[in-house]
Amino acid sequence: MSFIPKSIEQAIEEFGKLPGIGAKSAERLTFYLLGKKNEDLERFGEAIKKLKAGLRYCEVCQNFSLEPVCGICSNPSRDPSVLCVVEDPLALIALEKANAYKGLYHVLHGVISPVDGVGPDDLKIAELIERVKKVGVKEIILAMNPSLEGDATSAYILRYLQPVGIKITRIARGIPMGGDLNYADSQTLKRAFEGRGEY
Amino acid sequence: MSFIPKSIEQAIEEFGKLPGIGAKSAERLTFYLLGKKNEDLERFGEAIKKLKAGLRYCEVCQNFSLEPVCGICSNPSRDPSVLCVVEDPLALIALEKANAYKGLYHVLHGVISPVDGVGPDDLKIAELIERVKKVGVKEIILAMNPSLEGDATSAYILRYLQPVGIKITRIARGIPMGGDLNYADSQTLKRAFEGRGEY
Repeated sequence: MSFIPKSIEQAIEEFGKLPGIGAKSAERLTFYLLGKKNEDLERFGEAIKKLKAGLRYCEVCQNFSLEPVCGICSNPSRDPSVLCVVEDPLALIALEKANAYKGLYHVLHGVISPVDGVGPDDLKIAELIERVKKVGVKEIILAMNPSLEGDATSAYILRYLQPVGIKITRIARGIPMGGDLNYADSQTLKRAFEGRGEY
Repeated sequence: MSFIPKSIEQAIEEFGKLPGIGAKSAERLTFYLLGKKNEDLERFGEAIKKLKAGLRYCEVCQNFSLEPVCGICSNPSRDPSVLCVVEDPLALIALEKANAYKGLYHVLHGVISPVDGVGPDDLKIAELIERVKKVGVKEIILAMNPSLEGDATSAYILRYLQPVGIKITRIARGIPMGGDLNYADSQTLKRAFEGRGEY
């Protein structure tokens, strides 16, 4: 594109590589930034450049962390007897923001998906099994997304952890709050009936 | 958010400031980048930091440029006798990509919008009038977006340029290619009839 300065073209190209951001959005974001102060661009650019600086996996839960043990695992006010297994750090963030849970986590960093070439060894499953065997926990809550891959991953974990004899649960599936039965798919309705609770 | 490393939180915050990118999208983009190589982050970050480095307005058309005169204005194969006035560089990019036009441009960098506190003096209108008076052109094509603000800006420019005695046109309004009369709004249909052409 000879009709725009190289620096603008480069930024458009970089934004365009992001998932869900098409060519038009990439242009729009770039020109939005052109209206910003230099210090704002400096801060944004640095945040991206330094995103992974010093980042590692927490030795305990495998979440991203700057310390050997992350803030959640080292927090004495969290209940270490319950372990919630999540697909990725985004799920952990969602649960933390919802303030729904006060135990510890284990982050798998993905789900088993043969189509995408992701097997159990690509995930932090071995770390989970070792952790559970080393540190006694009362309950393991599987909080994978309700999907084929999520279910396959749960099944795989169950096979290894059920023999250990710990209580294993999974988060409920049903109609979301504010949802409408008219618009719920049949699988969701089926699960909502299966998982019904007594008043 | 004490449950995620500061560097991740910072990137999420920066992405979240962009228009059209909500909290969830900002998280998703950040974790997408966490899966990228350090050199990719380096390149993206640098592109943002250096976005405005050396950038200026082209002395002729007011588009962003790294040179005193931009690549389009200094291109001898473009027709200097036609001037297309656009709201912003994004419109120019769209027209250039469409390969619809071989003349020169004038970029206003906005439209008159009292609600947003944007008056004629905030735009490159004085530069346009001066340019037209200095360099003789045969035709000026107003290519503002069909909106209240776009029309107001066109009207303002017309008031100053019509006395100069140059042919002033505006790009056609009508049914877009692939569009459906059933779904077109009444204003568009009205304009399509007004602007009808003979076979």
